[in-house]
Amino acid sequence: MAKSTPKPISRIARLRREIKSAGLDALVVIQPVNVRYLSGFSGSYAVLVVDTSSATLITDGRYAEIAEGMVSDAKVMVQPLIKVDDWFRDFFSERGYKSLGFEGTLAWDEVERLKKRTRPSKGRLVESASLITQLRRVKDEDEIKAIARAARIADAMMEAAQTAARPGTPELELSQLIRRAAEDFGGEGESFDNIVASGPNASRPHHHPQKRKLRAGDMITFDLGARWNGYCSDLTRTPALGRLDPKFEKIYTTCLRAQEAALKAIRAGAACRDVDSAAREIISEAGYGSYFNHGTGHGVGLEIHEGPRLNAVSEETLQSGNVVTVEPGIYIPGFGGVRIEDLVVVTDKGCRVLSKSSKTLTILPA
Amino acid sequence: MAKSTPKPISRIARLRREIKSAGLDALVVIQPVNVRYLSGFSGSYAVLVVDTSSATLITDGRYAEIAEGMVSDAKVMVQPLIKVDDWFRDFFSERGYKSLGFEGTLAWDEVERLKKRTRPSKGRLVESASLITQLRRVKDEDEIKAIARAARIADAMMEAAQTAARPGTPELELSQLIRRAAEDFGGEGESFDNIVASGPNASRPHHHPQKRKLRAGDMITFDLGARWNGYCSDLTRTPALGRLDPKFEKIYTTCLRAQEAALKAIRAGAACRDVDSAAREIISEAGYGSYFNHGTGHGVGLEIHEGPRLNAVSEETLQSGNVVTVEPGIYIPGFGGVRIEDLVVVTDKGCRVLSKSSKTLTILPA
Repeated sequence: MAKSTPKPISRIARLRREIKSAGLDALVVIQPVNVRYLSGFSGSYAVLVVDTSSATLITDGRYAEIAEGMVSDAKVMVQPLIKVDDWFRDFFSERGYKSLGFEGTLAWDEVERLKKRTRPSKGRLVESASLITQLRRVKDEDEIKAIARAARIADAMMEAAQTAARPGTPELELSQLIRRAAEDFGGEGESFDNIVASGPNASRPHHHPQKRKLRAGDMITFDLGARWNGYCSDLTRTPALGRLDPKFEKIYTTCLRAQEAALKAIRAGAACRDVDSAAREIISEAGYGSYFNHGTGHGVGLEIHEGPRLNAVSEETLQSGNVVTVEPGIYIPGFGGVRIEDLVVVTDKGCRVLSKSSKTLTILPA
Repeated sequence: MAKSTPKPISRIARLRREIKSAGLDALVVIQPVNVRYLSGFSGSYAVLVVDTSSATLITDGRYAEIAEGMVSDAKVMVQPLIKVDDWFRDFFSERGYKSLGFEGTLAWDEVERLKKRTRPSKGRLVESASLITQLRRVKDEDEIKAIARAARIADAMMEAAQTAARPGTPELELSQLIRRAAEDFGGEGESFDNIVASGPNASRPHHHPQKRKLRAGDMITFDLGARWNGYCSDLTRTPALGRLDPKFEKIYTTCLRAQEAALKAIRAGAACRDVDSAAREIISEAGYGSYFNHGTGHGVGLEIHEGPRLNAVSEETLQSGNVVTVEPGIYIPGFGGVRIEDLVVVTDKGCRVLSKSSKTLTILPA
């Protein structure tokens, strides 16, 4: 671990521009993932204060020795946890910010505590989550490289899982194999708990792998991902085992057509809901509309679920540098399901697909 | 996975008593860990509304098939995610709660959304996190059994790690071995990313395992835990490798005396800060006071860090059924460190130690 997050300096500089144009004096950053994104600090506790001319990161004694090495463009201060309250009062009293932004994704009671801690500055506390969220949503080159590498690891995990799938293999065994493959292929582990859903279990999009053993004729949904240098990947494929139940063929080809239609609809400037409806219309026209009961995709980065969201109620527009999943599915209770998911980078003219696993309807040897 | 959390019915009944005595009409529960604790639902999205006579759990289409099976004492309703807003408005409008509690640990923007969603009831939204936090802090018999089982798995992981430690072994290799052992010994994985900190690296309490290879004469801090049926364990030992640097002996025995003093100070009714000072005084008297830069312990349950906290500023009192870590440490920059940690259940007369790994100063064969 402890590879440093790339180019933190340009991120704090970009945030500073946003802070100024939002009319804020400063922004307090507390959520670990945002602190990491901006400063490179990857420990579990630090507070980063970015104002229009400086950046200060405060952490506790546990990180005394390592914080300086991780953070390159903020002044690092170390305080015992029990003195952090006093430090806050002194710091904000001295700075006297009149308008201080905070992350809306912060816990409600943390915001209450922040109000108390920053009271001496007599400033106004303003919800400003969107500033960081907006920055994080558009990935820079180093981030895309990290996600692409996580995606390559996911491809290798998928290959390993499909190679190991045999009639009689329990879902749980494949799930464990996938988890281990995430490390064996160079990742820091999984980006989320993988899903191995076979036969009728596959009608549950968020099925937890169980003791059920694979049978010839099953369709098997593998949904998996790895983490590399903090960044996530996400990949789903649904092969058949041994032989193809003819009822599945239509479901699969419908799902694949929907997935490809959504991919085609992606480009900078496209409305997220239009990408969703590109997939949804094909599935609905084939008569499976009520069996596609989730959105078409979501952003991926330091977190496995970020913005933008590709669904029917989204009011967002795609930007060049967004990284999103495209993953329509069809789930028929009591019968089974199919989901096909790629991870893509949005570009001005379309998208670049990071997932390399084949989407051709595959029948694994039994 | 999907073992059901035991005895959810009695928990909702207990919460109902708290709701009444707090003068609330109902409590909205959104955080997944609290929803799981109360209802048994272990998926990623559900909202549980508990009032003085009923309990309703709403989830989305992804869990349509499995929610009923997980939840035994709340009415389950399934709504597509995009219709949840409408459902909320109708539900709260119909119920007309005047005083509605919410979790203070919820994200600030979720609370804002909740305000909008529940507006038709024209009630008052009241921060009531402490009701659930208080319940969760006192573990019932089934919870203690689950934690004890997770602790046994941690003991086995510790044994495996110490058996594999050899001069030349990289920290990262042991870290990976520990992660796998969590599953091999029957856990659902680790309860947190393990720490393997050898030689001078051990002066960093939250060190991330690196490429550094173990050397004879190192002290090695192993901090690890497993998850079983959702519940966590937490265990730290610091053996020497091959031979014992004499400077470490005093540090180790001081740390062990401090840890045992804290264990002796634990009983229902004891002030948490007194448990902390029992350990801290011994370390300070030995001249290492400034090298013990964190609290003595924390609660453990469905989350790895819960209440109560054993530290110098805690105003809490121990209760029978609390499960806490007891983990003083001494960290000397540039030299190394020692931490010794047990997981214990607080009882009326003292505590029951769940960790079985030996605390005798151990020299592993080189």
